Amino acid sequence: MRRLFNSSQLSPGPCIVTQTLSDRLSAYAGVAAELGVDAVALVPGPNFTRAVRHAFMSHERPFLLVIPAHGDPAALVPNLELRSWDLVGFEGAVFDWRDQDGYGAAFTDLLAHLEIGSLGVEGQVMRVFVHHALKHAQPDLKIIDAEREISGLRLVKTAEDIEALKAAIAISERALDRTLKTVRLGQTEKEIEQVLIQALFAEGAEDQAFHPIVAAGDGSARPHAKARADYAVKAGDALLLDFGARKHGFAADITRTVFLGHATDEAQAVYDTVLRANLKGFEVTKAGVTAHQIDDAVIGVLEASPFADRIRTKTGHGLGRDVHEAPYIMRGNHMALPAGTVFTNEPGLYEIDNFGVRIEDDVLVTETGATSLTHYPKELTVLSC
Amino acid sequence: MRRLFNSSQLSPGPCIVTQTLSDRLSAYAGVAAELGVDAVALVPGPNFTRAVRHAFMSHERPFLLVIPAHGDPAALVPNLELRSWDLVGFEGAVFDWRDQDGYGAAFTDLLAHLEIGSLGVEGQVMRVFVHHALKHAQPDLKIIDAEREISGLRLVKTAEDIEALKAAIAISERALDRTLKTVRLGQTEKEIEQVLIQALFAEGAEDQAFHPIVAAGDGSARPHAKARADYAVKAGDALLLDFGARKHGFAADITRTVFLGHATDEAQAVYDTVLRANLKGFEVTKAGVTAHQIDDAVIGVLEASPFADRIRTKTGHGLGRDVHEAPYIMRGNHMALPAGTVFTNEPGLYEIDNFGVRIEDDVLVTETGATSLTHYPKELTVLSC
Repeated sequence: MRRLFNSSQLSPGPCIVTQTLSDRLSAYAGVAAELGVDAVALVPGPNFTRAVRHAFMSHERPFLLVIPAHGDPAALVPNLELRSWDLVGFEGAVFDWRDQDGYGAAFTDLLAHLEIGSLGVEGQVMRVFVHHALKHAQPDLKIIDAEREISGLRLVKTAEDIEALKAAIAISERALDRTLKTVRLGQTEKEIEQVLIQALFAEGAEDQAFHPIVAAGDGSARPHAKARADYAVKAGDALLLDFGARKHGFAADITRTVFLGHATDEAQAVYDTVLRANLKGFEVTKAGVTAHQIDDAVIGVLEASPFADRIRTKTGHGLGRDVHEAPYIMRGNHMALPAGTVFTNEPGLYEIDNFGVRIEDDVLVTETGATSLTHYPKELTVLSC
Repeated sequence: MRRLFNSSQLSPGPCIVTQTLSDRLSAYAGVAAELGVDAVALVPGPNFTRAVRHAFMSHERPFLLVIPAHGDPAALVPNLELRSWDLVGFEGAVFDWRDQDGYGAAFTDLLAHLEIGSLGVEGQVMRVFVHHALKHAQPDLKIIDAEREISGLRLVKTAEDIEALKAAIAISERALDRTLKTVRLGQTEKEIEQVLIQALFAEGAEDQAFHPIVAAGDGSARPHAKARADYAVKAGDALLLDFGARKHGFAADITRTVFLGHATDEAQAVYDTVLRANLKGFEVTKAGVTAHQIDDAVIGVLEASPFADRIRTKTGHGLGRDVHEAPYIMRGNHMALPAGTVFTNEPGLYEIDNFGVRIEDDVLVTETGATSLTHYPKELTVLSC
């Protein structure tokens, strides 16, 4: 049964999922037990938000939620966040500290309270100053990078997660539509980017999922290009837009590449190749297929083309609360994808000093195949502008 | 002499500052030498952007620029960023790696090339997985948190930095003006937040400096509140807006608190106290005064008031490429502020379940005093809406 909800229930207040905070924390305790570490720690970021259902900032102040394999969780909270922390409904011990006193004593007290010898942390999220504060408070504490296992709890999306992703994607697609209708020759990449960003918010985005890539001509050949204020788009340019809205805490990530005025035969052939690779990704995906197998099939299409020397990227990455998360869809990753996984299918071909094409959809893995959460047309499009 | 520039020169292309990449890297070599470490490392973030004058993303791929105290710098660059990295004009050794191969060998090769025994890193920016990759490649490498020293190079703002800050602040103030003109009783915090965000981009922001705080009534009493979709603003509410635009890579950070319909005597007295504390901050600031002295004077005003039990925060923090950076304006920080430092002067009083008031200006330290970069009026304002 599809669960119904409205946005006010989803964010930023408590969700209507039947899981309680205590249930969610128990799952992290399970991760610790399975890893054979005494506890896992979360710092503000996607796992932290998922666990406590409130978003906290990650600035110069350490903020830590520690969940032991056995026993009660404890938290280290900046004093000025205590009132916000109250909303979480956390029942474990809380060690707070004020700016003027520093956080050293709070770490010492937290670790003395926990009596742990090993700790799994989110290596992609926790910063070195927190690592150092932990080691300073307890030099023999063994700190293990448990990013994969901790974030693994986010791998299979719930019905609510998928609805949030769909909402973020729908906003992104409406914003793309508005933007492409306004593109004119002579506009700079930066001007187009600004139209896109404003359209995202006008369509209901809570935030941008990431700073958009708006790249034309030779800029489109750099996978992570930044919009240029001094490049005016011209007839014959490829125009690549890679962007996404954030809604209910979830991120969309979409790329479309269009051509301005006309597309050369080469451009059409490259586009067709990338589109075939993207379609291959859908064709081979279903629950139980490995990330390696998907990437092998998708990149295989590109490799078999006359444009094999323009391959620079893997197929894609997982998508959810974070724009880049597991599973990474690349050769060598032999993880079988369970139903409920969402990933980006974003093959591309990039020729330096010439142009690049990328087509990116957000894909939901199901028992029987793959469902595209993205619906924006992907036939070769030439804007007459 | 004030240096003139236009935006296309400032961002994202190379700046017109006379310093070359090599000059800037030499300054980091100087930091390493002064610290007595063999090298310092930068990862994507404000220092990295400052050094190479191009912004790179910080995702799941390690990206590292190492500057030895003596000898040539070297970089570890994800293969798909190589074309963007070319724009930097870096002349040192580059160790790249592809997703499908993993980055382990690149770390080993980088460290074998560098032959260093100790490394200073940005503890507030580098994440644990990079720390672990470094230690895995060279277990005896001594890693020191050199955040303060590395970021210290950003402490004194250049003329260009200050112009960028002014541009970011001007955009923010225009956006605030637009927003306050549209506030109506019955709007939710979330609706007001969305108006503010769209106004920021409409006024020319490159990005938001951070996700805004828009908090009314009891929400304003939480220093880091999130806008609620289920709280409609009502007569008598305090409405606190803490936000900022990003422009030319620099962040504004402004707070104003207004009252809706009317302000009670208590609200007026609290507001007056916070305003006096804010004005005291300007009064006592000039080059050579310590962060401790400023905070002591500002918080002293609050402590001498009948509302001393509502103090929850220090005076403020440095502001530049990062929203929160050194110097932290708090008791115990005995750093004398040099001319050219920019910090937020943001005293506040917060009573839980009642309301909060914060007034935040961005302050430039000069030889003779303090200049406010913020010009938005801060007299008690009651919106009739």
